[in-house]
Amino acid sequence: MSSPQNWLILLSYNGTNFHGWQVQPNTVTIEGSLENSILQLTGKTVRVHGAGRTDAGVHALNFTANFHISSSNFDQPEKWCRALNAVLPSDIVVKDIQKIPQNFHARHNSVAKRYRYSICNLPFQPPFSIKKSWWIRHPLNVVDMREASAILVGENDFSAFRASHCSSLKPVKTLSEISIFEKRTSSATLNIEFQANSFLQHMVRIISGTLIEVGLGRKTVKDVETALKSKDRGLSGKTAPSHGLYALKVMYPNDSVKWRTEVLDE
Amino acid sequence: MSSPQNWLILLSYNGTNFHGWQVQPNTVTIEGSLENSILQLTGKTVRVHGAGRTDAGVHALNFTANFHISSSNFDQPEKWCRALNAVLPSDIVVKDIQKIPQNFHARHNSVAKRYRYSICNLPFQPPFSIKKSWWIRHPLNVVDMREASAILVGENDFSAFRASHCSSLKPVKTLSEISIFEKRTSSATLNIEFQANSFLQHMVRIISGTLIEVGLGRKTVKDVETALKSKDRGLSGKTAPSHGLYALKVMYPNDSVKWRTEVLDE
Repeated sequence: MSSPQNWLILLSYNGTNFHGWQVQPNTVTIEGSLENSILQLTGKTVRVHGAGRTDAGVHALNFTANFHISSSNFDQPEKWCRALNAVLPSDIVVKDIQKIPQNFHARHNSVAKRYRYSICNLPFQPPFSIKKSWWIRHPLNVVDMREASAILVGENDFSAFRASHCSSLKPVKTLSEISIFEKRTSSATLNIEFQANSFLQHMVRIISGTLIEVGLGRKTVKDVETALKSKDRGLSGKTAPSHGLYALKVMYPNDSVKWRTEVLDE
Repeated sequence: MSSPQNWLILLSYNGTNFHGWQVQPNTVTIEGSLENSILQLTGKTVRVHGAGRTDAGVHALNFTANFHISSSNFDQPEKWCRALNAVLPSDIVVKDIQKIPQNFHARHNSVAKRYRYSICNLPFQPPFSIKKSWWIRHPLNVVDMREASAILVGENDFSAFRASHCSSLKPVKTLSEISIFEKRTSSATLNIEFQANSFLQHMVRIISGTLIEVGLGRKTVKDVETALKSKDRGLSGKTAPSHGLYALKVMYPNDSVKWRTEVLDE
């Protein structure tokens, strides 16, 4: 009998109807839906290892996960993708799948991740943005937001920007980038993109919530500097809602993982 | 007592959960929802006149409608918009409102309309495109689609491209433009935009369905020419599904109608 294959999948999902990534009793999760679909197709119970654990309501444009399975009917990537997509709920899609070395792990092997926090900045909420971005009615001062974001880039102790129940032992992370992209000509979208080696729990949402308060004039750039130095969660802003957050990309060393399908950035 | 004011509104809606524009018994429609909201706010029963009648499932990014109402609490556009949006279902939004001359009619005064038919062309269906574009799994030949679309532009008898139950007395329309926009780098979206003085029933959806058949190699450019000349609905393609269709813009003479809010094209 052949040894199990290790498969890495590239996923996109609309997180609205899921209780996040991780399997929990009596709830519908992304991980659980994937494991059920694999069981349904192959009769085999596997554990799917995600590149992270997204919260309830958080979306993904490009997220990765791996699982080991002994040889099944599905040896060809195209066939695997089609079969999985045929049984998965329509709000989860497998964009690509590939065989990877036995010891490769979607999370442990990743070297960086990129997230996007999406804001719709208009006096009214466009119907197509519901549950897909955070609607902010009042105009945002993007210049101040950019200035505040620059303070946070680099290797910092992000204790002021993590959930109170965050279990990470090490609050120091290297936030290599925060970029704010404005699409004022079309849907008045403001996308804040974050890249780091790893993130603390709710870090992207707390930083986004803080930057929005700066954009609204409720906090100053100086306040953000003070919050960072204080390491006090009480001095940063509110946690932005989960429905504006997207897992955008999971990075592996030296671009060791290539995908057949074009990466969708939108 | 002052005479009634005539108000023109700029709307966007996600048509998924509506039985189209026009009021019908025991169904939820866009027109009905607007009339109910005005009644709820003012206690007055009005008739809302749309710039057209969109089918069940069809969306709008920019659609117009007008109604007459005797002076109410709402005289200022900002206040009107906020009040209407507060009571309307979240899948309909009033983007702007303005007073117009008494005899102005959203449909009769319009000189042209623009529609978009949106296609997602990928081997898998991205979760965020569900009910927002038509998913076509196989690659489309856009060069052939453009060549076929050029045949249809101009003043033509579009009898081959209208619904069998279309009640229009005049099948000759001036289709001033068909443009195909490709966004291959991101979400593999293909948008076909149509502009005409007026459209026959299902005309945009039948032309879109026909162009897709050309893109898939199931019809030739010559077939489209033959269909147009034949005036025979049996020779054109299938009607594309309503969920890919968007009302994009309603045009009035000499840009006589200006909106405060930026037109969102996406």
